[in-house]
Amino acid sequence: MSTVSPPVDPESDPRVRAVFDDIRVTRQTDFINNMWRYLAFDPDLLEQTWRDVKRIMATPSTLDPLTKEMLYIAVSVANGCGYCVHSHSAAARAKGMSPQQHAELMSIVALAARTNHLATALQVPVDPVFDRG
Amino acid sequence: MSTVSPPVDPESDPRVRAVFDDIRVTRQTDFINNMWRYLAFDPDLLEQTWRDVKRIMATPSTLDPLTKEMLYIAVSVANGCGYCVHSHSAAARAKGMSPQQHAELMSIVALAARTNHLATALQVPVDPVFDRG
Amino acid sequence: MSTVSPPVDPESDPRVRAVFDDIRVTRQTDFINNMWRYLAFDPDLLEQTWRDVKRIMATPSTLDPLTKEMLYIAVSVANGCGYCVHSHSAAARAKGMSPQQHAELMSIVALAARTNHLATALQVPVDPVFDRG
Amino acid sequence: MSTVSPPVDPESDPRVRAVFDDIRVTRQTDFINNMWRYLAFDPDLLEQTWRDVKRIMATPSTLDPLTKEMLYIAVSVANGCGYCVHSHSAAARAKGMSPQQHAELMSIVALAARTNHLATALQVPVDPVFDRG
Amino acid sequence: MSTVSPPVDPESDPRVRAVFDDIRVTRQTDFINNMWRYLAFDPDLLEQTWRDVKRIMATPSTLDPLTKEMLYIAVSVANGCGYCVHSHSAAARAKGMSPQQHAELMSIVALAARTNHLATALQVPVDPVFDRG
Amino acid sequence: MSTVSPPVDPESDPRVRAVFDDIRVTRQTDFINNMWRYLAFDPDLLEQTWRDVKRIMATPSTLDPLTKEMLYIAVSVANGCGYCVHSHSAAARAKGMSPQQHAELMSIVALAARTNHLATALQVPVDPVFDRG
Repeated sequence: MSTVSPPVDPESDPRVRAVFDDIRVTRQTDFINNMWRYLAFDPDLLEQTWRDVKRIMATPSTLDPLTKEMLYIAVSVANGCGYCVHSHSAAARAKGMSPQQHAELMSIVALAARTNHLATALQVPVDPVFDRG
Repeated sequence: MSTVSPPVDPESDPRVRAVFDDIRVTRQTDFINNMWRYLAFDPDLLEQTWRDVKRIMATPSTLDPLTKEMLYIAVSVANGCGYCVHSHSAAARAKGMSPQQHAELMSIVALAARTNHLATALQVPVDPVFDRG
Repeated sequence: MSTVSPPVDPESDPRVRAVFDDIRVTRQTDFINNMWRYLAFDPDLLEQTWRDVKRIMATPSTLDPLTKEMLYIAVSVANGCGYCVHSHSAAARAKGMSPQQHAELMSIVALAARTNHLATALQVPVDPVFDRG
Repeated sequence: MSTVSPPVDPESDPRVRAVFDDIRVTRQTDFINNMWRYLAFDPDLLEQTWRDVKRIMATPSTLDPLTKEMLYIAVSVANGCGYCVHSHSAAARAKGMSPQQHAELMSIVALAARTNHLATALQVPVDPVFDRG
Repeated sequence: MSTVSPPVDPESDPRVRAVFDDIRVTRQTDFINNMWRYLAFDPDLLEQTWRDVKRIMATPSTLDPLTKEMLYIAVSVANGCGYCVHSHSAAARAKGMSPQQHAELMSIVALAARTNHLATALQVPVDPVFDRG
Repeated sequence: MSTVSPPVDPESDPRVRAVFDDIRVTRQTDFINNMWRYLAFDPDLLEQTWRDVKRIMATPSTLDPLTKEMLYIAVSVANGCGYCVHSHSAAARAKGMSPQQHAELMSIVALAARTNHLATALQVPVDPVFDRG
């Protein structure tokens, strides 16, 4: 079930082909997951989404690649995106996430959700010492 | 503004006193932030919340303390909890998060939110290869 | 801070006056809270919102009035609406919610948030026995 | 998978029949989508939901019909309602939404999600000039 | 579709067996739903989740069991957890929720969502009288 | 209250200065709202955020500028971002949104939230005819 029709032969469009080729090189795999196949219905949206995913997730930075994938999972869980939870859990495992780390990630996500709801239910005022603004 | 009245002298209740003392020892500080002062209106809720926060966040585990704080921030942002974003951003800084790491955390959270919404808007079907169930 | 200007003299509009009068009679109080004062910028929106709040919340039904207020709080917490958490917590107290019940409500809301996030993180498939469709 | 059983012969109930007939006339189609078939388990809920959907979405107003459908999609994406994203994407296409407009809608939804999360992560204070209250 | 592999023979692990046995005794049924079968991939996570679900949901308290299940459903709907909506709707029916109560629960959840979004759209300031802090 | 310190003299950084200048020219105003002043703590994040806001929101496209602002408001309400609701409500008014259109926008957002929650509560299966994938 989807709201758009992915192109039958997406790589006949040279812009799509260029993005898919860059995904293959960057990730060193021939597998193009559905997110990109569906985004290919609009080459602009595809190019801009991939450009930023590549820049933020696949470029060496101040956070290590596994931490970045786990942060991605955490946000995706809280936003209720099943597709994203699936794809980034696979990516995190490919980057070395152990079952113990996966379980610990889940316990932190669940703990945060719990205290998020408690703080909202209580409407706790922010301590002035936390302000940096 | 809050929906409950925090006790005026919370530590006159020995159960609250014991939790506050444990927070001081665990965190090596005299500062008790508002979350705990407000939760003190119900010693059960206070004890159980602190017990799990201590176990998950303040016990050595497979994820390092700074990663855990950043995961907490990520979930709190996605759940829209202002108090939690403030308190865990302070905790992450105390554990060494640099401004560059903070900015990178934000760019990942924002990227995930963006692709979460795209995947939901497109209703992208999950690739069978992602299934572990 | 608000995104609309509440009318300075809202009851000079007879439609607003009629709604405010009905709120006073239904709730047996002279107090009109800000939600209605701000909605008064558009009499249609005010009338329709009040009509349904009155029908669902202030009419005898299969659920008792306090349960209905606690359900309202639960949804408002999960949706992150600070105003609604404040106003319905006050309403629930006015209908007899004890501090113990308030604390228990919070522990259920927090528990549900925690397992909601766990089920989403795990992407647990629905057991066929739960299907009624 | 569903949490309620839709009636096998919903139109044997005259209240359901009246709503379904009005849906057919209003939308000029014989197709009754699942949302209404499932809501038919409770004629009150069905009547009240359809009454407001008809009034707000199918009555000429200050916003054109396609804009209204796109706003509906935007909210449904942010609230993570897969059914609603599907049904209102179909409705928007039926009202003339082009693939380019669909892609642009998605890029706006994704951009808003991104800056929503950034503003929440930063806890940016509201500029006084934005206040109308 | 799931992000973890549930153990093939979960009860060969004595910690999992103990939890499953306690679920059977507490709920007086032989049925172990998928949530627990999947959480069994990590006995710690399983034990801690069940311990709190049992304590909060299956222990006599100030709220009756059906009210607690309906509160759980309300939060799960607002958090968009399909699995949780299914499992707790089944639990609520098992505890006596009538179709009329189910429909009324839905109308309250939907009403709260509606006013939550209105209050957020208007950015209504909290009335000082609601403050307890 | 904020989680980062906005630079005291942001335009002393030439990258920030360039973005602020482009905001002034694009929007034809001297006013730089807080979102940009706070994002200036990290010039990369500032540049990339503005680049995409400008491209998507301030470039002629298939949707008119007012529709785009209203879509932005709709997503921001559903995501619970108070800052964003304030800033884009001001932007929409500046682009001609009338009080009647504002009220209608709110009624659509509230209606969508209501049916989003109903569809999730019922777990309505997607009609096959809605599938485009």
